[in-house]
Amino acid sequence: MNKIQEISHWLKVKNVDMTFITSKENILYLTGFDCDPHERMLALVVFQSETPLLIVPKLDESDAQQSAWNHDILGIDDTDDTWKMIQTAVYQRRQRIASIAIETEHLIYDRVTGLNGAFANPSFVRVEEKIQALRAAKSQQELVIIREAARIADYAIEIGAQELAEGKTEMEVLAALEYQLKKEGITKMSFETMVLTGTNAASPHGVPGNTKIQKGDLVLFDLGVVVDGYCSDISRTLAFGAVNEKQKDIYQTVLNAQVAACEAVKPGITCAALDKIARDVIVDAGYGQYFTHRLGHGIGISIHEFPYLTSISDTIITPGMTFTIEPGIYVPGIAGVRIEDDIFVTETGAEILTKHTKELIIL
Amino acid sequence: MNKIQEISHWLKVKNVDMTFITSKENILYLTGFDCDPHERMLALVVFQSETPLLIVPKLDESDAQQSAWNHDILGIDDTDDTWKMIQTAVYQRRQRIASIAIETEHLIYDRVTGLNGAFANPSFVRVEEKIQALRAAKSQQELVIIREAARIADYAIEIGAQELAEGKTEMEVLAALEYQLKKEGITKMSFETMVLTGTNAASPHGVPGNTKIQKGDLVLFDLGVVVDGYCSDISRTLAFGAVNEKQKDIYQTVLNAQVAACEAVKPGITCAALDKIARDVIVDAGYGQYFTHRLGHGIGISIHEFPYLTSISDTIITPGMTFTIEPGIYVPGIAGVRIEDDIFVTETGAEILTKHTKELIIL
Repeated sequence: MNKIQEISHWLKVKNVDMTFITSKENILYLTGFDCDPHERMLALVVFQSETPLLIVPKLDESDAQQSAWNHDILGIDDTDDTWKMIQTAVYQRRQRIASIAIETEHLIYDRVTGLNGAFANPSFVRVEEKIQALRAAKSQQELVIIREAARIADYAIEIGAQELAEGKTEMEVLAALEYQLKKEGITKMSFETMVLTGTNAASPHGVPGNTKIQKGDLVLFDLGVVVDGYCSDISRTLAFGAVNEKQKDIYQTVLNAQVAACEAVKPGITCAALDKIARDVIVDAGYGQYFTHRLGHGIGISIHEFPYLTSISDTIITPGMTFTIEPGIYVPGIAGVRIEDDIFVTETGAEILTKHTKELIIL
Repeated sequence: MNKIQEISHWLKVKNVDMTFITSKENILYLTGFDCDPHERMLALVVFQSETPLLIVPKLDESDAQQSAWNHDILGIDDTDDTWKMIQTAVYQRRQRIASIAIETEHLIYDRVTGLNGAFANPSFVRVEEKIQALRAAKSQQELVIIREAARIADYAIEIGAQELAEGKTEMEVLAALEYQLKKEGITKMSFETMVLTGTNAASPHGVPGNTKIQKGDLVLFDLGVVVDGYCSDISRTLAFGAVNEKQKDIYQTVLNAQVAACEAVKPGITCAALDKIARDVIVDAGYGQYFTHRLGHGIGISIHEFPYLTSISDTIITPGMTFTIEPGIYVPGIAGVRIEDDIFVTETGAEILTKHTKELIIL
């Protein structure tokens, strides 16, 4: 079954009449059409068996026609009666709409009101879990793209390492790194690049600024790039000049935790179990209170997506999942260290997509 | 009255019990607290006369305490019963909640459901127009910040002009421009910078890429920076080498339209009237079909905000409004020209905040 057939099948099983999906990430995933409609209407209506319908702003209609989507498209102009057009198009396909599957964490009040008006107060059913389950199982085609995004993330860390110099600010290193990438045609970062040095890397609210890199600093990089709509995400912490035993101990503890979790990845283990494997290493070394976040998060079209590797998630790891493993230790006033890889789950274990060395590099 | 008192007064006039405001831009404006809660709960509850309440993720609570907000704060942890806590805190302040003012274009279904559960299906009232009216009237303090953002935007155009060279790609120029800004500590652009050259600037879907700058090109820059939470937005179109009469004619027409609209700005005129003044110049010159967008948009905390200068907006211009004036002509295969300034409305006319020359620069 293709993705739309999967949704149709799910609607049948749940006895729901149609979807009204409006998040651009889910629409990109399900239709192949990449569109930012801003405040305008973008929606995917899938039925149990009737022809699906992609609703787009009129000015994006020609792009939609040229996209991978090969079913019906309804272009709506700013001056059109949006809900009347949607109502007509839907009833042409299916005559009774008693229930609609929506993204309950995304659909805004005005559109709930619009659906209530157009379809006589239908019941609403949450669709998030179905789509996130589909999105979590990456195809070989998606894997190829994410591998490339990860390869470029590795390269970005190399650029960052080359840019480090005594007295340069975090912002200067960050700017030079992104400049190099952009010059080579990598136009989009997954999120705002982080370069944090010394104790700034140990602050939970540290942001890159005018802090200068000094001998003996640990410098934390966290960045990613977008390739064909898919994100990578890597963290590496490099030593600028000789670091002391305490810094080395923190680094080695994070590395041990990270490697232990990576080695434990296989189908059948839970997210919480992976989190615990890394967390136990850090707790046993006496740094438990300084590992203040979850172990990782899914990556794909979104930089943060299902599954979430938290201490309380009983989600079971399955083949095709792609997520980060990124333990960290942040000791205020001393140092902050995080090591993060992107992981693809195979039938038997894991492929680590980011390949930059994790041994402590002393520059 | 301060902003919160304004909202309280409005609630009294409308006979609405409280607000439940969740957009981070409106919360920044009303409270001074700048927070991206991601999927977590961030909400501002203002009453007719009871003490207002800012609801924040627990991990942002200390930042909220250090912000300009000096009323109550409720920090909610991931493991808390969010709606129970909100219900309790609200009923401690006001015992009957029959109506709630919400952002109908922002509040998501799950939170509508949460409010319905916690407050026994209240009626919902749209709050957008009240807040946008407040936000549209910039204070002297906000003006000082936006002036600085505009000054840096002018500077960015200068950098861009210096970076132009034959054979350089749009992306190389863009990267160099942002690199220079970042090195100088300007960390955040208002939106994705545009550098478009030659016929690429004439395409409605042109994005910066590997198109090389050639002699005789018109090069279109559109960019802005964020200063203390406020955006600027400037467009300039520069000639790289000698351009032909057709290009000059297009440029001069846009310039005439832009200047005419800027000179017409004063309290009392409508948005549609301003749009028409610029559009008439372009139509009269025979390029009407190639001016394919509105004249401009408000700027402030958001890069696009009220008022919107469209051909059908009867919104009346009032002192304190800050918006762009940005007519453009895009003739496919020939050239694209846009000239954009940021305008502050005074008691009697306008202050143009962006000051980079608008005469055609031939580099």
